[in-house]
Amino acid sequence: MIVIGEKINGTRKIVGSAVERRDAEFIRRLAIRQFNAGASFIDVNAGTLPEREPEDMAWLVEIVQEAVPDATLCLDSPNHRALRTGIEKASKPPMLNSLSAESFRVDSILPLACEFQTDLIVLPIDDSGIPKTAGGRLAVVRRLVEMTRKAGLSDSKLFVDPLVMAISTGIDNGNITLETCRGIKEEFPDVHLTCGLSNISFGMPLRSLLNQAFLVLAIQAGMDSAIIDPEERELRGIMMAAETVLGKDRHCLNFNRAFRAGKIGPASSEK
Amino acid sequence: MIVIGEKINGTRKIVGSAVERRDAEFIRRLAIRQFNAGASFIDVNAGTLPEREPEDMAWLVEIVQEAVPDATLCLDSPNHRALRTGIEKASKPPMLNSLSAESFRVDSILPLACEFQTDLIVLPIDDSGIPKTAGGRLAVVRRLVEMTRKAGLSDSKLFVDPLVMAISTGIDNGNITLETCRGIKEEFPDVHLTCGLSNISFGMPLRSLLNQAFLVLAIQAGMDSAIIDPEERELRGIMMAAETVLGKDRHCLNFNRAFRAGKIGPASSEK
Repeated sequence: MIVIGEKINGTRKIVGSAVERRDAEFIRRLAIRQFNAGASFIDVNAGTLPEREPEDMAWLVEIVQEAVPDATLCLDSPNHRALRTGIEKASKPPMLNSLSAESFRVDSILPLACEFQTDLIVLPIDDSGIPKTAGGRLAVVRRLVEMTRKAGLSDSKLFVDPLVMAISTGIDNGNITLETCRGIKEEFPDVHLTCGLSNISFGMPLRSLLNQAFLVLAIQAGMDSAIIDPEERELRGIMMAAETVLGKDRHCLNFNRAFRAGKIGPASSEK
Repeated sequence: MIVIGEKINGTRKIVGSAVERRDAEFIRRLAIRQFNAGASFIDVNAGTLPEREPEDMAWLVEIVQEAVPDATLCLDSPNHRALRTGIEKASKPPMLNSLSAESFRVDSILPLACEFQTDLIVLPIDDSGIPKTAGGRLAVVRRLVEMTRKAGLSDSKLFVDPLVMAISTGIDNGNITLETCRGIKEEFPDVHLTCGLSNISFGMPLRSLLNQAFLVLAIQAGMDSAIIDPEERELRGIMMAAETVLGKDRHCLNFNRAFRAGKIGPASSEK
């Protein structure tokens, strides 16, 4: 499972304020903690106004890549100028978050991804919004994959996000996402699947429980990446448990290793 | 989800000793605790030697049905004499645990289930043992369903157990069970599916985590019942979370109710 750490996001008040104050130590710690908790990608979202964003993104990229040189940055912005500034500061090709079929993203973000041969998060959204059905989302993904192939980006660089909507606003929202996953994997076996997992539980109590159950189902549906808080211990535990019972963990090695290192299981066993 | 409480099992030392000592209070408490935790069926296994078993079973049935008159008993024994004695003591038709395609069970337990029109747990085991593949298990289930239909027991009285084997002894054991579930549900939509869930984690650390992940997957594969410890709080929580994100909990009512009653979520919120 590829974990993309979600915490360095300027739309979160405490992070936005750290970006504004140029609190490098705060950002550095967030990056290191997420990397140590298993995130191989670190999402970086300045969350500031368009005119400030390129400068803030450049600052964040510098801090984060110095803190966790072995991680890959995931530059998160709809603003292609901020993305370009970030890419140019990055010492290796980052992941871009994200391309959709909205015209402005196709025109500005797809060329960037191709020029720098980056990994790319892909959302099934077009100028009419988010399709309500799995079939509708799959149709948008199909158009997007045609574009990325034509533009010279291999399928294995794509991380398609089937979009997770809150179960509190529609009883079928979980199933629609899972069906979208299965459809994408069947048609495009080489693309990765990722998601902003915690959307599923928006508006509900005991969000962590719902996130855990949904993660297990998503893994079975082909999800091999997730944008999450890697420090959430319960989520990490159930993720490894799901991989184990689904036969994805040979000889149960990863699970046993994580247990012995105190990385999963009751917090009291944390080492 | 139909929960069959597993705790009154004489093969567990502490229970076996209570049966021997005729410690009615101990058994009564186990029954009540399980029923209050959500078990609508209470498994009753005397676990004693064949010559003692009918008498012990009769004693257990009396104690348990007096303690939890609204529960259904699940009489658990390979011994048809013990089962008959239990049925005759029971004030309403119990569930029988279990029929398999082993000759001695077909000859002795199937007629009992038909005579008293009981619910019946069905195992895909025959005289050659447990088939290793999903296809093999499905073939045994097919033979058994033919027999039960011919004998006059409706499919909706069957609780088929696809058999859960330890992931520690075979990396595909989880997938084989899930595939068996899907095959059974497709071919026999009216039967229930149940299982002895915790077998999946035998020989592993952090068994509860593995059980939780497997339960979520089993529910998606059509499992609508499980033989578990209903007092295991984490399992109850993830079970309700899975039903919710799979769209089986209209308006998320059950989940919200269980949360407000303190039945799921961190133990500190237990009321």
